[in-house]
Amino acid sequence: MVLPEAAIIGVGMTPVTAGSGRSLTELFVDAARQALDAAGVDRIDSIYVGNMMSGFLQNQEHLGALMATALGREGVPTYKVEGACASGGVAVNAAVKGLVSGMEEIVMVGAVEKMSGYTTPEVTTGLMMAEDRVKVASTGITFVGLNAMIAREYMHKYNVPHESIAQFPVLCHQNALDNPRAQFRKKIGVEDVLKSPLVADPLRLFDCSGIGDGAAALVLAPKEMAGKFTDSPVEVAASTVASDTLSLYQRPDVTTFEASKRASERAYKMAGIKPEQLDLVEVHDAFSVLGVMALEDLGFARKGSGSKLLDEGQCARDGDVPTNSFGGLKARGHPVGASGAYQVAELTLQLTNAAGKCQVSDAKAGLSQSVGGIGGTVATHILRRMD
Amino acid sequence: MVLPEAAIIGVGMTPVTAGSGRSLTELFVDAARQALDAAGVDRIDSIYVGNMMSGFLQNQEHLGALMATALGREGVPTYKVEGACASGGVAVNAAVKGLVSGMEEIVMVGAVEKMSGYTTPEVTTGLMMAEDRVKVASTGITFVGLNAMIAREYMHKYNVPHESIAQFPVLCHQNALDNPRAQFRKKIGVEDVLKSPLVADPLRLFDCSGIGDGAAALVLAPKEMAGKFTDSPVEVAASTVASDTLSLYQRPDVTTFEASKRASERAYKMAGIKPEQLDLVEVHDAFSVLGVMALEDLGFARKGSGSKLLDEGQCARDGDVPTNSFGGLKARGHPVGASGAYQVAELTLQLTNAAGKCQVSDAKAGLSQSVGGIGGTVATHILRRMD
Repeated sequence: MVLPEAAIIGVGMTPVTAGSGRSLTELFVDAARQALDAAGVDRIDSIYVGNMMSGFLQNQEHLGALMATALGREGVPTYKVEGACASGGVAVNAAVKGLVSGMEEIVMVGAVEKMSGYTTPEVTTGLMMAEDRVKVASTGITFVGLNAMIAREYMHKYNVPHESIAQFPVLCHQNALDNPRAQFRKKIGVEDVLKSPLVADPLRLFDCSGIGDGAAALVLAPKEMAGKFTDSPVEVAASTVASDTLSLYQRPDVTTFEASKRASERAYKMAGIKPEQLDLVEVHDAFSVLGVMALEDLGFARKGSGSKLLDEGQCARDGDVPTNSFGGLKARGHPVGASGAYQVAELTLQLTNAAGKCQVSDAKAGLSQSVGGIGGTVATHILRRMD
Repeated sequence: MVLPEAAIIGVGMTPVTAGSGRSLTELFVDAARQALDAAGVDRIDSIYVGNMMSGFLQNQEHLGALMATALGREGVPTYKVEGACASGGVAVNAAVKGLVSGMEEIVMVGAVEKMSGYTTPEVTTGLMMAEDRVKVASTGITFVGLNAMIAREYMHKYNVPHESIAQFPVLCHQNALDNPRAQFRKKIGVEDVLKSPLVADPLRLFDCSGIGDGAAALVLAPKEMAGKFTDSPVEVAASTVASDTLSLYQRPDVTTFEASKRASERAYKMAGIKPEQLDLVEVHDAFSVLGVMALEDLGFARKGSGSKLLDEGQCARDGDVPTNSFGGLKARGHPVGASGAYQVAELTLQLTNAAGKCQVSDAKAGLSQSVGGIGGTVATHILRRMD
């Protein structure tokens, strides 16, 4: 098995906001400049842009050259990488492969999404581009509707009440209180989730991530060069992507994401690490039930018992499995094509002891899980402190 | 400089047609199955999907998992790669990097575009996604309009008459007569180009590639493994991508594509080859003038004198610089996000002596040039026969 031998030497993130009024380009350049400043490099050999919806929402493609130009880096090799809501995660994977190939050394990933300023039907249609237009989206079901079906089945199959699942957004809102870039910095309780407006039965407003704009960027270098740029480089110990059938109707069991299991099992093997050796995880909680399922699919709990970790407080920053330490998709925000890169950037801050009030003490290794569509694509990264 | 050490072991292409009535998925699977059959492999470690416009035209993203599922390959790592009209070319580059990284061995590229069945305004808006929506597309200028500005400036600056440039589509239509997959199999003369309806002055209908549906696929393996699968493997001797400023207004000279020069210069160096050692080229002639400019930017002629090669018959299959031997974008067809992969697949057929009536005799090395937008992105590949 070939190991990545890649390191992250700088990261940048914009706050996630709705109604930022900022263009795709402005968001990208903000995050990219932060990452370059943090890395202290001028040279970039290649830029990988992660994004999902710009073709549909902004009528804009060709983000590679657009962003390279805006950043004053015209000339460098660049293109866009897309994997639905996991676009940020798969863009990191593409960048890692570019670096590991040896065909480039200093590599940037910038992932961006702008979702605010559009009508609800526009954004709803945009998100459903992650599903099969011909066979599923054409029925009129929405993305929230599909996740509601998962939630209903999960609750029924494992006899888990909504109250248990609702602890996931509560955790995320709690963690986001300390994150200045978070979209929702408001403490909520389980009762607030259960009383919030119904979106798609059984999912309520606070079960769902919101609509937001944001960009996150990373600069990577070969592991053996990383010490030149920073005193606290972070190793990409694993970078994996796996897929599954695109649609729920094609699966024997909708309460588990096979792609999440496949990608994480390969990642654990690549990094030579076991789940219990991780100090924190960032999981793709676009909907409350997905956060709970992720804990199970990643190996932290048996199927149906993920919420017990929440019951026991294990997912808090001082627990055994600190989860979504900056607020996750629910509360930091979920600019869809950027979220996978936010996760990796946040892990990097944690592992370099630069997470501020969100810091998990003595964090040495962490994992991120980024889900595209209804689990059709999952990108997993394991980062490790290099000292 | 790290060399690709990759080989192509099988290719597949659908015919390019308008009004195929086939979905993105049907087109992709057709080309992918042909490529797998040709390669004689069952294993695929990764699938890279090239496409530009599916988000806008089909309201469909997440093509990676969609296509993997349709091909019965759910589970494999997969994502979409986009670089406007060079999407097929940059997808090949991403696949080569994946293979060279050693993180995967048997890799598929499938590039697909479906453009027919939509209104002219829809396709026109779709194509302009390659340009800056905020600063350029918003003015109302079309993609043909931008290329018309290039043509006007080129003709003026170098005192080249339309008759000279018009020889490019004439060449392509001649070559396409022998290609059963070509969209336009009709002999035309320079007079036909000059008398065809005006689209955007000075460009006329026969200066422009058409609207079509198509998919092309490749299977790649490490060079040292290639002999196991095929008696005639083709080496990817170079795979490069370069960018330039996205928009024409940002450039000092619109009659040359800096990205084309940058990508090809690096490719020549990587392959250890000079332009005059190539046996054929496939260039991005979305518009007649671009074909002529490509011959210059790739090093076959001085600026302003590319059409002299056409005057002298050098670009014909029996000339010194056989060009667009299967008909190029103009006559084989230009399903935009797929064209870059068609070029590489066609070169492969040439170098394995499998090009049928389109065969260039004793072809040992060839180059493809795939242009995204108005030259904002260029992907270049050099292939070489391995015996």
